Amino acid sequence: MPDRSKLTFLIGGARSGKSAHAETLATALPPPWIYIATAQAYDDEMHERIALHRSRRGEGWTTIDAPLDLAGTLAALPDDQPVLVDCLTLWLTNHMLAEHDLGLECRRLAEVLSRPRGPWFVVSNEVGQGIVPDNALARRFRDAAGRLNQQVAAVADTVLLMVAGLPLKVK
Amino acid sequence: MPDRSKLTFLIGGARSGKSAHAETLATALPPPWIYIATAQAYDDEMHERIALHRSRRGEGWTTIDAPLDLAGTLAALPDDQPVLVDCLTLWLTNHMLAEHDLGLECRRLAEVLSRPRGPWFVVSNEVGQGIVPDNALARRFRDAAGRLNQQVAAVADTVLLMVAGLPLKVK
Amino acid sequence: MPDRSKLTFLIGGARSGKSAHAETLATALPPPWIYIATAQAYDDEMHERIALHRSRRGEGWTTIDAPLDLAGTLAALPDDQPVLVDCLTLWLTNHMLAEHDLGLECRRLAEVLSRPRGPWFVVSNEVGQGIVPDNALARRFRDAAGRLNQQVAAVADTVLLMVAGLPLKVK
Repeated sequence: MPDRSKLTFLIGGARSGKSAHAETLATALPPPWIYIATAQAYDDEMHERIALHRSRRGEGWTTIDAPLDLAGTLAALPDDQPVLVDCLTLWLTNHMLAEHDLGLECRRLAEVLSRPRGPWFVVSNEVGQGIVPDNALARRFRDAAGRLNQQVAAVADTVLLMVAGLPLKVK
Repeated sequence: MPDRSKLTFLIGGARSGKSAHAETLATALPPPWIYIATAQAYDDEMHERIALHRSRRGEGWTTIDAPLDLAGTLAALPDDQPVLVDCLTLWLTNHMLAEHDLGLECRRLAEVLSRPRGPWFVVSNEVGQGIVPDNALARRFRDAAGRLNQQVAAVADTVLLMVAGLPLKVK
Repeated sequence: MPDRSKLTFLIGGARSGKSAHAETLATALPPPWIYIATAQAYDDEMHERIALHRSRRGEGWTTIDAPLDLAGTLAALPDDQPVLVDCLTLWLTNHMLAEHDLGLECRRLAEVLSRPRGPWFVVSNEVGQGIVPDNALARRFRDAAGRLNQQVAAVADTVLLMVAGLPLKVK
């Protein structure tokens, strides 16, 4: 059994198996497990993705929606429970669309994550290894996501890069 | 000399040296070597890429084209011969353009790859580490490629992430 | 202290902490440190990025601009000084926009980098792990960058893949 209060950060590309591996790690611990969903369904495609993720998780999970106040949600959690946050890039997208101060929001979140109160598993996307995007908004998002990933990795106890469903230990 | 029946999966970005490294691994074994090409030349740029790959390979290679029926082609191969499949993402593109059932095709392929009958080397692209693509077709391809890569990595004996021409062992 | 004449190559996505980590490695050695900037400010966004990087570096740095003649600049450096080249993909962009022979320029650069005369740290971007770009120029750049990264990694003593600010040793 992993230590009680540890942050595991899982980063990877789209369909790299981040969520599934995080679920495997969390469910290796005794339930109940808390799933913090940051997704907001703007369209049918997103509805489908959310439903798919939800159906894969079985019994024993409590789902909390936190599309924006992820820091507050984490701060209010009970101690010593396995928590899966899925995922940081969607949370960041929500704040960007709401035109919030990304730097401020990311610092608040990193602060809470730097003091995990249980085995916490946090999932995020690597979005910076393609060609520089044409549009300025995408570039701004890419920069913000990269900075956030650095902040979280810096305070994490374990950092895993997911490659084709397999974890590569970075820290 | 590697074991006779082992699957090595090489994944990496564009121009990361996947094909060249796979060729190096295959040609370290005694010939004849079988090269299974999945590329279809739709335009001049593709013709050039195919010609470049072909010219780099020297004597001792037998090339088989398998743009669609890769599973059947692999199933019909003789035992105990080094085989290089280059590459899965082009094969997936061909099926997508032909509007085939991708889930079914990927399962068929993964099934054959789970029982390699020789030292088989399979190359694929990581396409999920950039910004979410604008168009739905690209997103669908990215998802399908990611799932396929997970399926193949799961049954592979060795998984290598190619970074700037160098292999990083993931499994 | 690292050996005197060694090439360290740092590759990673956008905002993966490449430059900051390279600075940390360079400034662990005695000053003076030489910073070779390849960036050219075409627009305000680029001006901001350059200013940000410059402000992060403190005392002890000498900055040399080398948007095109990077090989010549490196060849003219004094021996045994920590040098940070930031970055190869911007240098390649400059040559592409100037419509120079990329193959020739990359070979010249790789040749100089194969004989480092001090602890040299070279930063570059991984740009090939997203979806194939729509436009031909982006594809050509992606190919050229991938080939250049392979050439440099081949002659480097150490190759680090940066993931969320953390180095993963590839070589």
